[in-house]
Amino acid sequence: MQMAKVIGMVTSTVKVKEIKGITLLVIQPCNSKHVAFGQAIVAADTFGAGVGEYVFYSKSKEGAMNLPIPTACVDAGITGIIDSVYRKV
Amino acid sequence: MQMAKVIGMVTSTVKVKEIKGITLLVIQPCNSKHVAFGQAIVAADTFGAGVGEYVFYSKSKEGAMNLPIPTACVDAGITGIIDSVYRKV
Amino acid sequence: MQMAKVIGMVTSTVKVKEIKGITLLVIQPCNSKHVAFGQAIVAADTFGAGVGEYVFYSKSKEGAMNLPIPTACVDAGITGIIDSVYRKV
Amino acid sequence: MQMAKVIGMVTSTVKVKEIKGITLLVIQPCNSKHVAFGQAIVAADTFGAGVGEYVFYSKSKEGAMNLPIPTACVDAGITGIIDSVYRKV
Amino acid sequence: MQMAKVIGMVTSTVKVKEIKGITLLVIQPCNSKHVAFGQAIVAADTFGAGVGEYVFYSKSKEGAMNLPIPTACVDAGITGIIDSVYRKV
Repeated sequence: MQMAKVIGMVTSTVKVKEIKGITLLVIQPCNSKHVAFGQAIVAADTFGAGVGEYVFYSKSKEGAMNLPIPTACVDAGITGIIDSVYRKV
Repeated sequence: MQMAKVIGMVTSTVKVKEIKGITLLVIQPCNSKHVAFGQAIVAADTFGAGVGEYVFYSKSKEGAMNLPIPTACVDAGITGIIDSVYRKV
Repeated sequence: MQMAKVIGMVTSTVKVKEIKGITLLVIQPCNSKHVAFGQAIVAADTFGAGVGEYVFYSKSKEGAMNLPIPTACVDAGITGIIDSVYRKV
Repeated sequence: MQMAKVIGMVTSTVKVKEIKGITLLVIQPCNSKHVAFGQAIVAADTFGAGVGEYVFYSKSKEGAMNLPIPTACVDAGITGIIDSVYRKV
Repeated sequence: MQMAKVIGMVTSTVKVKEIKGITLLVIQPCNSKHVAFGQAIVAADTFGAGVGEYVFYSKSKEGAMNLPIPTACVDAGITGIIDSVYRKV
């Protein structure tokens, strides 16, 4: 899973019906030192992660595994909210 | 899911039969500030997204999940049309 | 799906039995303006695409979905041959 | 699979229930000469790999295949701990 | 599939039980002109490819499809050994 910071939210009226009511977060991938890299993506969230929190997320089919309907056309989902990172060196 | 702008369309006569009649959009990946990055790809569309609209799409197997035949040889599909992006900072 | 140009062919005697008789094309990814980028890959072809033609292909599991045996150890397959690309701007 | 060095650990209280009790390692991808590249990721570990050890891991759905619940929303998992790498040239 | 050159081997005692006895090759991705690019990876081999040989391999779930146990936690496997590449231009 990749670490990321929640930086925003997407609203969408016309979308696949399986994600009606699911929060769509804009998250910025970052490394274990909280340094951003790459491009922000849209991920489905079922934990209520707030803007500014650090999360780790799964991509591809696994990203939809925690949704009410896991076969949704979704390829990125929050796996958990990070409490802390222990990093040696 | 990645955000993208619809920039065109592909026509193809010889193709896998599962996508006969499905619109094939050319979409340009972009970030939450509408800045393009990377290479344009071809994605299946079942929402009627028009050129110039912003969408978010899924890749890999999930990309085909909203097609009439989800087992099609398709690895990118529009998940929804973006109304607006709220982005803090 | 990514657009690509067919640039060659691979011959292989020792290979997974599920793709015996399937053409293995060397294709060069390109964008909607026919500009090459990235590295050429090997993709299974069931349409008879010829060298010089433009195609669009699927990666990962979906890439094998149009093969006689879709569970083959194959992660890239031609989805269709491109007739033309309409691109605004 | 990619080679990587274990460099830390992530703690998370709010996470998908399928990984309760599973160790979440921070691993740094590296090549066969132990040179780091790219960004550190979070991977599920079921082998007890320690900080400083070299491992190889699988991504995407396969990354969850060794978990007690393989359908978890997890896209990276340790496949094994590396004893040694033989590299010619 | 990507082309690659076999450059070494990995030994691992502690690993997922589904790959006990399977050879783990270190392969270097290369293009159709045999020019290396990117980072070497570890791939499961069921064909007996030797160091120095050119192969093509599949990633993700497909990479495990030729293993005795295809649901193994493995995301890269040799699809075949390359005899020759015909490349126009």
